[in-house]
Amino acid sequence: MRTGRTVQRKGKKKGIFDVVGLGYTALDYLGIVPHLPERDRKLELKRFLIQGGGPTATAMVTVRRLGLSSAYIGKVGDDGFGKRMIEELAAEGVDTAGVLVEPGADSQFAFIMVDETTADRTILWTRGSVSGIRADEVDTHLITSARALLIDDLEPEAAAVAARTARGKGIPVLIDAGSLRSGVRELLPLCDYIVASEVFAAQIAGGIDVSEALERLYSFGPKAVVVTRGRAGCVAFDGTDTIEAEGFTVEAVDTTGAGDVFHGAFLFAVLQGWNLYEMCVFANAVAALKCRRLGGRAGIPDITEALVFLEERVPRLSFDCTDGDA
Amino acid sequence: MRTGRTVQRKGKKKGIFDVVGLGYTALDYLGIVPHLPERDRKLELKRFLIQGGGPTATAMVTVRRLGLSSAYIGKVGDDGFGKRMIEELAAEGVDTAGVLVEPGADSQFAFIMVDETTADRTILWTRGSVSGIRADEVDTHLITSARALLIDDLEPEAAAVAARTARGKGIPVLIDAGSLRSGVRELLPLCDYIVASEVFAAQIAGGIDVSEALERLYSFGPKAVVVTRGRAGCVAFDGTDTIEAEGFTVEAVDTTGAGDVFHGAFLFAVLQGWNLYEMCVFANAVAALKCRRLGGRAGIPDITEALVFLEERVPRLSFDCTDGDA
Repeated sequence: MRTGRTVQRKGKKKGIFDVVGLGYTALDYLGIVPHLPERDRKLELKRFLIQGGGPTATAMVTVRRLGLSSAYIGKVGDDGFGKRMIEELAAEGVDTAGVLVEPGADSQFAFIMVDETTADRTILWTRGSVSGIRADEVDTHLITSARALLIDDLEPEAAAVAARTARGKGIPVLIDAGSLRSGVRELLPLCDYIVASEVFAAQIAGGIDVSEALERLYSFGPKAVVVTRGRAGCVAFDGTDTIEAEGFTVEAVDTTGAGDVFHGAFLFAVLQGWNLYEMCVFANAVAALKCRRLGGRAGIPDITEALVFLEERVPRLSFDCTDGDA
Repeated sequence: MRTGRTVQRKGKKKGIFDVVGLGYTALDYLGIVPHLPERDRKLELKRFLIQGGGPTATAMVTVRRLGLSSAYIGKVGDDGFGKRMIEELAAEGVDTAGVLVEPGADSQFAFIMVDETTADRTILWTRGSVSGIRADEVDTHLITSARALLIDDLEPEAAAVAARTARGKGIPVLIDAGSLRSGVRELLPLCDYIVASEVFAAQIAGGIDVSEALERLYSFGPKAVVVTRGRAGCVAFDGTDTIEAEGFTVEAVDTTGAGDVFHGAFLFAVLQGWNLYEMCVFANAVAALKCRRLGGRAGIPDITEALVFLEERVPRLSFDCTDGDA
């Protein structure tokens, strides 16, 4: 098992990133609760924490923690929240030159109630008054510098431009499909990997039959599709085989961002050239490890920790991190 | 009806305040929701607003809006939240010289889900890491400068010192009794007015019988006790008569802080020398008017607006604002 090489790759080529992500970010306010509050009552939080979050931004932090370089493209307001989001990404080593700051806009925010017993997270969120990233605002040079692209379902106009740009250069595109919002269906034919939530799978298949959803998603033309299932892990389909990869059990404190971390880890795995099953197992492991701490990002492991965990839990599999050595 | 005089009183005597409040403040993050969120799901807020809140701090804003002078004594962290809380109070004209700023502490915070249909507010709150106000931190000179004192149930140690100090000078003390926390029962014998929530009333009486609660509260020796009942108004007892004052119906957007505003308005009424029924009706009216806007403070009326509303709704009553003219 070689773990050091990808880490050495950091920043070797200026302006060239292993992964670029275009999508949503938010400032998360997280509180641990004994239970969800009763209507019209007051409930005291047991713990409280502020941390950057959002699907694509957290995935870019994941890529970086695992030892590859990443850049985030998004839009925030010019308020304290926006400033803090950018600072936290920069502190993680995620490139933020592509972050647009909208004058006068209130940034994206989420309040997250984390169940003390189950580690479930219940999220209340707002885009604030930040506008969507317009097609003409997308830095296509940044995207063509990447070896892989992540998009999500919250910036469909810009994501379409980014995905087409990446595809034109043969750069693999992964979509984090969380909810079937307006404009998202049109993104699916532009993607090499469709990683859908169970909610999205049910929306696209018109029901909760996962096999049906996998086939429906596969009909859009990707290399592979995945449906994530929280603690249960994920199920994937490559047009021939359906692969089930069970989730890992950890001492979970907070499941916030587990899906976002899964997407970042999955893209890391794509760049290692692993097979679909290995990608799923690896992403499940990194997502599970994240859940040990409060907040979407605090618990994200580095590559060494992830590989040690995998060696312990699935010794029969070997995860060689050869990416970047060719 | 004379409405101008109390307003002219503002700031006439430097360092002397009509009302001093010692207790809790918080920064409120408010979001309008179509319903409470389902467990482990995401729900997008319909509107989002940041505004200062907290029982005693909002009551002091109320006193000020109604045209009397007020000072707030509390403790916040030396973070952005604390700074914002102080700035908002100062912008309202509430004296903040008595606010303690604790180095390194995270300030009090609340996330409030406001039901779009019912205007009910469901509150998640945290003290952050701010410590309670210690007995030796209480500025007793500020308290003896006041004509009335408000305390709440969240700073019992300091509230006891403040209440004893006020009583020693014959200054009336009102307690906002929201929940029967540790140390709160000991405050009750120090108060001239006990204004209790229905929750507190049930806790003190061991059940939901309001008459029983009124008598039990009255046994602590105040001039009068009140139990507030949200939209239904309030019920009061002066040792002889039980007085019911129905709530007023308004186009309610958000009931957050209605109780806090009630306490501020009630103390304003105490200083006018009105009878108990008039105090209750006036406080009900001011609290109802508050509910027209999102946030604990945005909708608080000035005295003119309150009196116009009362003249329209209860023309048989006359509210003369003669305070300060003696």
